[in-house]
Order: sequence, then structure tokens, then C-alpha cells
Amino acid sequence: MPEDQFEYESIGVIRTPFESPDGMPIQPVGTDAVVGIVEVYELYADGLQDLNGFSHCILLYHFHASADTASLQVEPFLDDEKRGVFATRAPQRPNPIGLSVVEIDSVTDHKVTVRGIDVIDQTPLLDIKPFVPDFDVPSDADTGWLDAPKSTIRSKQADERFL
Amino acid sequence: MPEDQFEYESIGVIRTPFESPDGMPIQPVGTDAVVGIVEVYELYADGLQDLNGFSHCILLYHFHASADTASLQVEPFLDDEKRGVFATRAPQRPNPIGLSVVEIDSVTDHKVTVRGIDVIDQTPLLDIKPFVPDFDVPSDADTGWLDAPKSTIRSKQADERFL
Repeated sequence: MPEDQFEYESIGVIRTPFESPDGMPIQPVGTDAVVGIVEVYELYADGLQDLNGFSHCILLYHFHASADTASLQVEPFLDDEKRGVFATRAPQRPNPIGLSVVEIDSVTDHKVTVRGIDVIDQTPLLDIKPFVPDFDVPSDADTGWLDAPKSTIRSKQADERFL
Repeated sequence: MPEDQFEYESIGVIRTPFESPDGMPIQPVGTDAVVGIVEVYELYADGLQDLNGFSHCILLYHFHASADTASLQVEPFLDDEKRGVFATRAPQRPNPIGLSVVEIDSVTDHKVTVRGIDVIDQTPLLDIKPFVPDFDVPSDADTGWLDAPKSTIRSKQADERFL
């Protein structure tokens, strides 16, 4: 394989109440009450040690339910104008890797129960990282085209545009 | 390819002053002054549109300079005890995908100049996402085993333990 191609394997699956993107909250912030189970394959269970000390983690996963065709300009859920895909969190990306920050409820054996999950049931898991404010939270942040519509994030739901 | 294997291609490279992990700051927070250039291949340049409105972005990249062998228990730079790999940000992960939140200095053509970069020169880029506090910043966060040593993050540098 050339050095610019990388093969990753799922290390588990994310179980959630969402069977399709239709009606799913678009980001964890709209989904505080939604509980999901991150099931890591037994093979990787030892890697979960010490995760229970963290209140939040970052999940990386494969957007398995979106169309395979990547677009460089997309119309995000939060806007009606086309935006460069790297200025959006849309699933139809050149590398369809998703990222969600979720709250850790409990860690047992090979399962992590999380709150505030916004992915479709059976989403293939790629990685879990501890959320560390010193690493992950800049002191201030501007949000470009999202400034106007972001007040609607909490109520906005996904639709079929990326299917 | 089975449904639990995923092939991704680099969409560009990250240029930084760091030729090896040795002496590199371990996370962006220790590297505010360090400027890097995220070079997106021409093919993907259109995807950068609208990114200039955001102050920060999330870079996903492939840890290309680390050993291929993943460990489930690692001794992180910030600690001398072995920790479950998913409770650390160590590069030697089952899927060696790295994540850094960096400040956007400017976006021109197919290049993004960023501040606070902590990766090795020529790191293959997988994705750029806008940093959105409403999505990415929980209201409060605990940091487990990192609580004690995190005061040392700003001065701590990487060494050769993951080479």
C-alpha cells in the first residue's frame, strides 16, 4: 500500500437508539439525554483501563451510513448555502471519519456507557481518546458561518441529505 | 474489503519545524508559538472554502513516525505508569489516528497556516474539521490520571518511547 493510503480496522461498534440519520440530533450538544454503549471488541478491552477517571472522551468512527461519494462543497444541516466540506462537520468527506465528544457514564469490562451520543446504531468505532481541556479547548474560538445558525443546533435534526 | 476495514487516503501533508518526535512539544498547548503549514492537495482545495471564518480547527492525521505495533497498555509522556491506550493520547494505538486542535492563522489557496502545532514534519493529513465549542467543549471535564501531572504539560517534550 502506498504511503498515502492507510488501512484501519474497527475496534468495536457504537450502539445507539438511532436507526437512521433521519431525526437524529446533529451533534452531541443536542443529545445530552441520549445514552449509547460503546462496545469495544474483547481483543481491545485492556486498552480501556484508566478511562473511567475521565469525565469525557472523544470518539472517532467511520461514517458508515453516508453515501460513498465525497463532496468538496456541501450544504450543511445548519445552513442553506454550500460550504467547503472542511468548514463543516458533514459526513460526506474525502475520508469519512466522524468525531464526537461525549460524556462517560461508566466503563465496565469492554463497554463504555456514554451520554450525548449523535451517531447511528452500529457505527464502526475507530478510536477512543480521553478528552483533555488543556489539549482540546482553545481559550477563545470563532465559528465563522456557524455564528448565525448555531442557536438552532439544540433543536436541529439530521435529514436525508447525506444518505 | 470487509465492512470493518476502512481505507483512507491522505488529503495533504502537515509541514512543521519538527523533524523527529524527540524534543517536540507533546500537545498544542505547549506550542502556541509554533507555526505549521497544512498543505491540502490541489484536488481538495475547494473544500477549504469558508474555513477562514473559524479561529480554530481540528486536524486528524496518521501517526506515520511511530512504530507499527500497537500496545493496549502504554507509558504516556506525562506519566511513569502504564495506562490503557484509550485513556492516553499516545501515538501507538490500534488505529494510529492523531488529533490536534490548532489555531487558524490564515487560509490561502490550498494551504492553511496554523499555530500551536505538535506533529512531525510531513505528517499525512486525513481530515480538517472546524472547531465548534458548542459541539466540542463540554461544560466541565475531569481528567483522571492526568490530573496530577498536567501542570507539566507546557514544558514536557516528547522522547523516543513511541519510535
